[in-house]
Amino acid sequence: MIKQLEVVRREHLKEKPDMATLGFGTVFTDYMLSMDYNPEQGWHNAVILPYQNIELSPAAQVLHYGQAVFEGMKAYRTGDEVRLFRPEENFRRMNQSNARLNMPEVDIDFMVDTLKQLVTLEKDWIPTGEGQSLYIRPFVIATEAYLGVRAATHYKLLIILSPVGAYYGSDHLLATKIYVEDEYVRAVRGGVGFAKVAGNYAASLMAQTRATELGYDQVLWLDGVEQRYVEEVGSMNIFFVIDGTVVTPELNGSILPGITRKSILELAQHLGYPVEERRISIDDVFEASQAGTLQEIFGSGTAAVIAPVGSVKYKDQELVVNNGQAGLVTLDLYNHYTGIQNGTEKDPFGWCVKL
Amino acid sequence: MIKQLEVVRREHLKEKPDMATLGFGTVFTDYMLSMDYNPEQGWHNAVILPYQNIELSPAAQVLHYGQAVFEGMKAYRTGDEVRLFRPEENFRRMNQSNARLNMPEVDIDFMVDTLKQLVTLEKDWIPTGEGQSLYIRPFVIATEAYLGVRAATHYKLLIILSPVGAYYGSDHLLATKIYVEDEYVRAVRGGVGFAKVAGNYAASLMAQTRATELGYDQVLWLDGVEQRYVEEVGSMNIFFVIDGTVVTPELNGSILPGITRKSILELAQHLGYPVEERRISIDDVFEASQAGTLQEIFGSGTAAVIAPVGSVKYKDQELVVNNGQAGLVTLDLYNHYTGIQNGTEKDPFGWCVKL
Ligand SMILES: Cc1ncc(COP(=O)(O)O)c(C=O)c1O
Ligand SMILES: Cc1ncc(COP(=O)(O)O)c(C=O)c1O
Repeated sequence: MIKQLEVVRREHLKEKPDMATLGFGTVFTDYMLSMDYNPEQGWHNAVILPYQNIELSPAAQVLHYGQAVFEGMKAYRTGDEVRLFRPEENFRRMNQSNARLNMPEVDIDFMVDTLKQLVTLEKDWIPTGEGQSLYIRPFVIATEAYLGVRAATHYKLLIILSPVGAYYGSDHLLATKIYVEDEYVRAVRGGVGFAKVAGNYAASLMAQTRATELGYDQVLWLDGVEQRYVEEVGSMNIFFVIDGTVVTPELNGSILPGITRKSILELAQHLGYPVEERRISIDDVFEASQAGTLQEIFGSGTAAVIAPVGSVKYKDQELVVNNGQAGLVTLDLYNHYTGIQNGTEKDPFGWCVKL
Repeated sequence: MIKQLEVVRREHLKEKPDMATLGFGTVFTDYMLSMDYNPEQGWHNAVILPYQNIELSPAAQVLHYGQAVFEGMKAYRTGDEVRLFRPEENFRRMNQSNARLNMPEVDIDFMVDTLKQLVTLEKDWIPTGEGQSLYIRPFVIATEAYLGVRAATHYKLLIILSPVGAYYGSDHLLATKIYVEDEYVRAVRGGVGFAKVAGNYAASLMAQTRATELGYDQVLWLDGVEQRYVEEVGSMNIFFVIDGTVVTPELNGSILPGITRKSILELAQHLGYPVEERRISIDDVFEASQAGTLQEIFGSGTAAVIAPVGSVKYKDQELVVNNGQAGLVTLDLYNHYTGIQNGTEKDPFGWCVKL
């Protein structure tokens, strides 16, 4: 594991985009991090270099067998202060994903240090508007040119950066409508659902397309065995406020262990809300709605932060949550959470890493 | 859909490898086919060009979300005669995979024509030794540079070619030992198991690694729901000869519909063997073994063709099939099947496409 980081400067910096109209994940900054792996040297050749296309053999295993994992996190800026949010958690999860796909693990401390250097260099790219941030995408791909099915010997890790606005457009606290998918399955225990691996997302597209066509914003996935228990939403974990308690499905091997999920659980407890991680069936949700105890639903994820859910469609039933509005618990958590991330509020957990 | 094919010649052809010692999927020929897709033009820019690295944006969706499908087939040469084996079946299956991942379908006739031109150009690369052939790998990847999770707008299709020997080494009729995986799951109904998509293979690596460590050659997968019903082996479908009947698991949405599987079913019927496609549990297999009615087991796939199975390990039981030898039905099917492919036997089904 090499500890040195080379920096290759570019001659001309790009023009920055209009930060007022940022979308998600289309604009990239001036630099990226690149690092290579082979069995002899381990991870080596760590270099910050101008953002540019990469060259791959057409036989590179990532293109055939999907050995690819990624992470997503954000840097926030207030004035001159820049914060990363729990970056070591993302590299820890990356290692869990790597392990599941037989890929080499990274040195977490080295990655966090390297990321700090990269983000410091790209500080001017961090937008400061409401809901804006610098999205950070580390990923690892198998580069070996070999068509047999086995773990590759050569890999590349890259980190690319993209200034982003709110994930679901400007009105980020508008409640979303979710569609409970009862045919397609995202993941099953014994599979790779808990890992942030490329194939999980390709497998989710058809369901998302159907939900969109039917007029819904997002898919809510059920478990792969019984197709009864709530798992997660597109790229968010899911929370229910039932009778004052903040409930989220327990981690079961097929749900992605969201860092926002984990942090929200800690924050909610800190704020005095009772929390529960447990199995919850879609029938439980509809029964709670009928009984009048289902108060709020929201999704949690790095991209969307906290997204209130206004309605849930399952087979021929549809329930409306809190009159289709963001609820009080959702808003309370949202305000404290984004306050900590933006530095406008104290960070009692030590989550933020200042540059 | 454009119908024209440009050919860009290379100045110097590569040196051919020693065909006597060919492995699998490491050597590539002089040329490849490349074709692009965008929403305005559909598939366009079909060109045969020198085999070379490709350039991708680091944000190309294939590297993050696994929108990648592939196919595998073979060209066989006897003297000056070159045969493709049911190529239209592979492009038909590619379209099923494309559809499952929200990717654009290809024109099957155009693809078969194009492939014929490519293989004709690369005829000298087709090895003629026992068990040897030219492996053909068509694949489609999402190239759009965008980090949101949705179907990409831009794709690239490539066909690369690799002269290959027998998949499991020279002694290709040596019986393999298989390990029944009872923890990891490859695929589940409602998922993408029936499609030849990249993510399925990454998800299979851990189980294969464990099987190898325990001294077995291949993993036998069980269904994802009950973990009881036999599905398939690594990159082969599986057949049992029970009481004279050739039995294979029925297609259920999580098993890859192998073209070898389909052809073997047709061939076996033609040769007068009773065949059955049905659900078969791993307990059924062990019970048949105990009852003395389990006569043979073999795997079927393009790479390995037909591979006899000599033993099956499940939890703490292990069964030996036909004294660990290739059985008579297996050998009969193998001989007729490879005879048709090599042109040494009549092709009553019209499977072979001559160039
Ligand atoms: C499938 C899935 N679930 C949940 C999440 C939320 O995880 P986190 O809070 O770490 O962003 C994500 C994404 O980022 C995801 O892709
Ligand atoms: C998972 C899997 N099952 C079965 C097969 C056999 O299919 P075919 O006979 O078309 O090669 C393959 C491979 O090629 C495969 O990858």
